[in-house]
Amino acid sequence: MSVDLLRELSAVLPPEGLVTDSDVLEAHRRDQAGWAPAGIPRALVRPASTAEVRAVMRLATAHRIPVVARGAGSGLSGGANALDGCIVLSLARMNRVLEIDRRGLYAVVQPGVLNAEVKAAAADQGLWYAPDPASWEFSTIGGNLATNAGGLCCVKYGVTGDAVLGLEAVLADGSVVRTGGRTVKNVAGYELTRLFVGSEGTLGIITEATLRLRPRPPPATTLVASFPTLVAAGTAVTEIVASLRPSLLELMDRTTLRAVESWRPMGLDVEAAALLLARSDAGGEQGAEECARMASLCEAAGGTVIAHTTDEAEGELLLGARRLAYPALERQGATLLDDVGVPLSRLAELLAAVEHIAERHGVLIGTFGHAGDGNMHPTLVFDREDEDAVARARAAFDEILHEVLALGGTITGEHGVGLLKRSFLAGQIGPEALRLHRAIKDAFDPLGILNPGKMF
Amino acid sequence: MSVDLLRELSAVLPPEGLVTDSDVLEAHRRDQAGWAPAGIPRALVRPASTAEVRAVMRLATAHRIPVVARGAGSGLSGGANALDGCIVLSLARMNRVLEIDRRGLYAVVQPGVLNAEVKAAAADQGLWYAPDPASWEFSTIGGNLATNAGGLCCVKYGVTGDAVLGLEAVLADGSVVRTGGRTVKNVAGYELTRLFVGSEGTLGIITEATLRLRPRPPPATTLVASFPTLVAAGTAVTEIVASLRPSLLELMDRTTLRAVESWRPMGLDVEAAALLLARSDAGGEQGAEECARMASLCEAAGGTVIAHTTDEAEGELLLGARRLAYPALERQGATLLDDVGVPLSRLAELLAAVEHIAERHGVLIGTFGHAGDGNMHPTLVFDREDEDAVARARAAFDEILHEVLALGGTITGEHGVGLLKRSFLAGQIGPEALRLHRAIKDAFDPLGILNPGKMF
Repeated sequence: MSVDLLRELSAVLPPEGLVTDSDVLEAHRRDQAGWAPAGIPRALVRPASTAEVRAVMRLATAHRIPVVARGAGSGLSGGANALDGCIVLSLARMNRVLEIDRRGLYAVVQPGVLNAEVKAAAADQGLWYAPDPASWEFSTIGGNLATNAGGLCCVKYGVTGDAVLGLEAVLADGSVVRTGGRTVKNVAGYELTRLFVGSEGTLGIITEATLRLRPRPPPATTLVASFPTLVAAGTAVTEIVASLRPSLLELMDRTTLRAVESWRPMGLDVEAAALLLARSDAGGEQGAEECARMASLCEAAGGTVIAHTTDEAEGELLLGARRLAYPALERQGATLLDDVGVPLSRLAELLAAVEHIAERHGVLIGTFGHAGDGNMHPTLVFDREDEDAVARARAAFDEILHEVLALGGTITGEHGVGLLKRSFLAGQIGPEALRLHRAIKDAFDPLGILNPGKMF
Repeated sequence: MSVDLLRELSAVLPPEGLVTDSDVLEAHRRDQAGWAPAGIPRALVRPASTAEVRAVMRLATAHRIPVVARGAGSGLSGGANALDGCIVLSLARMNRVLEIDRRGLYAVVQPGVLNAEVKAAAADQGLWYAPDPASWEFSTIGGNLATNAGGLCCVKYGVTGDAVLGLEAVLADGSVVRTGGRTVKNVAGYELTRLFVGSEGTLGIITEATLRLRPRPPPATTLVASFPTLVAAGTAVTEIVASLRPSLLELMDRTTLRAVESWRPMGLDVEAAALLLARSDAGGEQGAEECARMASLCEAAGGTVIAHTTDEAEGELLLGARRLAYPALERQGATLLDDVGVPLSRLAELLAAVEHIAERHGVLIGTFGHAGDGNMHPTLVFDREDEDAVARARAAFDEILHEVLALGGTITGEHGVGLLKRSFLAGQIGPEALRLHRAIKDAFDPLGILNPGKMF
């Protein structure tokens, strides 16, 4: 059957669309999630059109072969990891911006286009594509959609799903469905668009997306404040989001500050418990005033304002420390980047809990992330060669997730469940919601060939 | 079986929870949609708790009796209309605000609470519940959720679905599912929350909602401009939303202006083709500047600025004409309020098309609505006693929907499909999406007892 499959695939794809070279397969069998297993695919297909995706899915259905879709492979939960004998379907060749409608405020794009390319195409028309995952320069829109990716702008502008007006997707049996449209508001039928977004390749292969564009916001004013305790930083965050509309509100803890400072010394206060970076893009006087009010709230919570600028270039420099957080921690050892969310009122408790877990298990954990959304990335750093250290890191990782659920939070705020957190999903959503997940999955993909074993 | 059913219902509900009085049933068998048919229910149940909703659904499943949920009955598409022999399930007694978490920025509420009551409870904590359908003073949150209701603030703050963090819902078989949570970001599993929102009571009975609250925006600056042509007004709207972030952008056409002026004379320019009302809540200098830039764009498009104020009370007076639009048209005859959306770039074409349709069919159509979202309410006015007029209105209504689809738009932007537009849904979403609707419906409600025959 396997030889048949390859012959049939080669009949519906051009030569460059079908790859079985083992080195290439090796490079396409996993994403960036450290701890998730990955199998050996039978073939990599690289369709260049919706028609080719349909042809592949028809054959996959006929042969009952699992299909794992992938974009740039920059995912962090193992969602794009291969299964033994599967077809890996790369959307890399479907990488065009098909249309930018300046007056309609939307872009129609293929899934393999980079987030950065959509931003650039929108900017050419004086517009803005808001979603900005940390991977925006190298991740694809298809991957952003599959995980409902977040980013730094979410605190004011929402997540990827909030910027999607409509989709085209190929279902497991090769049929094509279009969801949503090009209108801002649309309540005709169920929200299929939002169901595909974040479904991690388990319901269909997204082959086209209509994305919402916005006018570019005014230049931002940037503020940096340091805090003597995590509780003080958490309090400042809570007070800021309860009264103002920051366009960015990021936090780095002491472990992260030290990692950044030791890699790229920039005079960070490594004795501070946490650094908060905040922005207002309200514009002009209003932006300056909003930042001044954020500064007051930081000081009232016990923080010290250490920088404040309306200059965009200087603001980018200040943000540099935050952008270096994860690569700096990666320099310290093997890392496991977590992604958890808590209600805004529980942020300080989350930070304290992670600190205690790090101490208890003797694991270095640097925590940074999107404080204004209650979405943080505790990052475990350990020696991969030290079995005991690995075991302690694993135990700490699990304990963080249990703690997050105890705080009424979520095991993933923006990276997805994938393989990494599959065993925790039921604990968060409960048996009834899990039953609905299975029922929806069966309805869309009755043979279970789309990215089986991921998410649940 | 019917007698059995009533006896069994009376065993699980207190006396005030079960009503069979025909006058009361009559008052609960339809919503505000003029043209949608409504049957005679067997019973009205008024559960006071999730447990009572579960008990009702278990009996409905056992007897295979349809259940039609309703809030305030202010819907405009027939979504809450009864079927002969069904149970009407009113959520009116589940009307409490259970919790406001000021630091967590959320409210936990029961479905029967009024939108206005949630706004008031949020305001007591210095916070804001944004969604503001025109019915906000008398519609319930449950109804807002069932239709994914829109409103005037959507142009900046999104629709009801954008303000929902999590839900509790009772399924057809009486099981309870919880979706989402209390975090701002959450990608753990499929977006079940967004699937229930807008599902018009066909997938489950929402028994609790966790709503997102926001800081109150600064006082708004208000602008009013008149336009000599619809195209000029459409151009102004397009240019404004492509470069600025109005917190409100509403349009009224000449027919609507005349209806308002003849009912409540306020010196409106009844020769204008359209009036545009815009607001900025950017605050302070920035709000005034944003309004000044909107004024320039209106003038560049050929409009005349006729009022501009930073005074909130005066702004509310200016908005008064818009708030009177529908009641004023209702004074002119029987009305059928439509609700359509087009891509922002097609707004002027939609307005022109509606005008032509009105002329061709000899029907008075007043058009007003949420221009900044491309979501308009062409309102047909006719003499209900005149058969020919009714037939012409019906033909014009259908033609508007066909025209909207030709413009790449949606048959409903915020009111829902219900019964009124059921026959148009397939034409918009296509057979594959319709097949997925049926599959999802079967997965959630295999016996088809939840609001059958609505939407599709």
